[in-house]
Amino acid sequence: MSLPPLWRIEIDGRPAEAEDLAHTALVNHGHFTSMQVRGGSVRGLALHLERLDTANRELFGVPVDRDRVRAHLRHALDGIPDATVRAQVFMAGDRPRILVAVRPPQPAPEAPQRLRSVTYGRPFAHIKHTGTFAQLHHKAEAERAGFDDALFVDSAGMVSETTIANIALHVGDTVVWPDAPVLEGITMQLLNRALAANGTPAERRRIHLTDLASGDTVFLTNSTGITPVARVNGTPIPARPDILKEMRTLYESTPWDPI
Amino acid sequence: MSLPPLWRIEIDGRPAEAEDLAHTALVNHGHFTSMQVRGGSVRGLALHLERLDTANRELFGVPVDRDRVRAHLRHALDGIPDATVRAQVFMAGDRPRILVAVRPPQPAPEAPQRLRSVTYGRPFAHIKHTGTFAQLHHKAEAERAGFDDALFVDSAGMVSETTIANIALHVGDTVVWPDAPVLEGITMQLLNRALAANGTPAERRRIHLTDLASGDTVFLTNSTGITPVARVNGTPIPARPDILKEMRTLYESTPWDPI
Repeated sequence: MSLPPLWRIEIDGRPAEAEDLAHTALVNHGHFTSMQVRGGSVRGLALHLERLDTANRELFGVPVDRDRVRAHLRHALDGIPDATVRAQVFMAGDRPRILVAVRPPQPAPEAPQRLRSVTYGRPFAHIKHTGTFAQLHHKAEAERAGFDDALFVDSAGMVSETTIANIALHVGDTVVWPDAPVLEGITMQLLNRALAANGTPAERRRIHLTDLASGDTVFLTNSTGITPVARVNGTPIPARPDILKEMRTLYESTPWDPI
Repeated sequence: MSLPPLWRIEIDGRPAEAEDLAHTALVNHGHFTSMQVRGGSVRGLALHLERLDTANRELFGVPVDRDRVRAHLRHALDGIPDATVRAQVFMAGDRPRILVAVRPPQPAPEAPQRLRSVTYGRPFAHIKHTGTFAQLHHKAEAERAGFDDALFVDSAGMVSETTIANIALHVGDTVVWPDAPVLEGITMQLLNRALAANGTPAERRRIHLTDLASGDTVFLTNSTGITPVARVNGTPIPARPDILKEMRTLYESTPWDPI
């Protein structure tokens, strides 16, 4: 697996040194958030900061100072208006350390996605933790088999999430998210707010793999945006362009927050 | 989580630089082996090298040159006779890169271990991959609850492995390993060879959590050696010192291979 170019990587506001990175490279015990930055701003900044604080309290029993994270983000982004940013927290002794990695901006995939179902569930699924090996490897295996990504289902075929996105099924006038252990993505949360403001019903239900072809549109959400699903395994999935456009318009009504 | 001191960390025979470590710190897609080095030698060196090569072929489709790994191990250990060594492989483009981390030698835990059962199974369990977040976190949670480690069981209560060791049940004259998805540890493999040479029966069977109290001894194996189990959840586990001594004596008959 190759990485996109890494423009900057800082820890606690200073260029990351080998000694600090060795800890993170060898001890797979941290958490992070990923965001798209445009013009120095982020959608749902408060939610990203809340995610880091909440996860750190749960994993390590201590908070993460949100103003400190913002300061480190601003420092790493100095002079870079548009970027993909990962803010990752690891513990050195009892102290949370903030790693910020800055890469080129990343748009949502243009092509409707072809998914392969895989029986897997992320451990500690509600946390965006650094134990992503299985996600990366299921994605790599799906790609080798001619798909774009893997869709996780449990042993009964109930859908949860993809390796890097939430999945939603649009049925009638309702957006349905899986009632399953998933990471509640920031984009999912922001879209839900926009749906509520628009009076569009949204709810969580158990979704079986075979339900996906029964709605009018299936789409994915993550920090890059909203992407339709074209196929799941051998099954074509309906995709109504008007619904997809409505979802995107609603999500894009979310304001950009200056970091 | 704090690390023990890191004496050296090299990549491809050179001190690891920030740029290389950033890849490993951010992309959780690699595999490794851990070994105890004494006097510049390792038990089961060929098995460690085979593990790296086999895992790399499965994960990334390309081999790892065993002589190159040995050379990098020797380079990182130069002047250090006794150590804990982790050899980790990650891909940069199509090329496997060998990270060697050298820490102080680590003996097996002296105290009989108190385990807490947790319903979890490692993904891609036959591979010693870098996606260890759930293991580290289950161990941390077990420790906070007053145990030494977590013991993984499936939803039916069938035992697989701990976060860092194989588990075996000694019953009558037989060593029983779980017939479950586990990492087949090098120490487990070496002990099985010694058992076979000694004429001691060893086999794999499905082991339920409640079976553990029914034998005469339960013990753990990993690169630090063999350690008895004292309790699982609230249940005391029998531990016959003569059996444990026999297991250790058999394992310790394994020769040390110069790196």
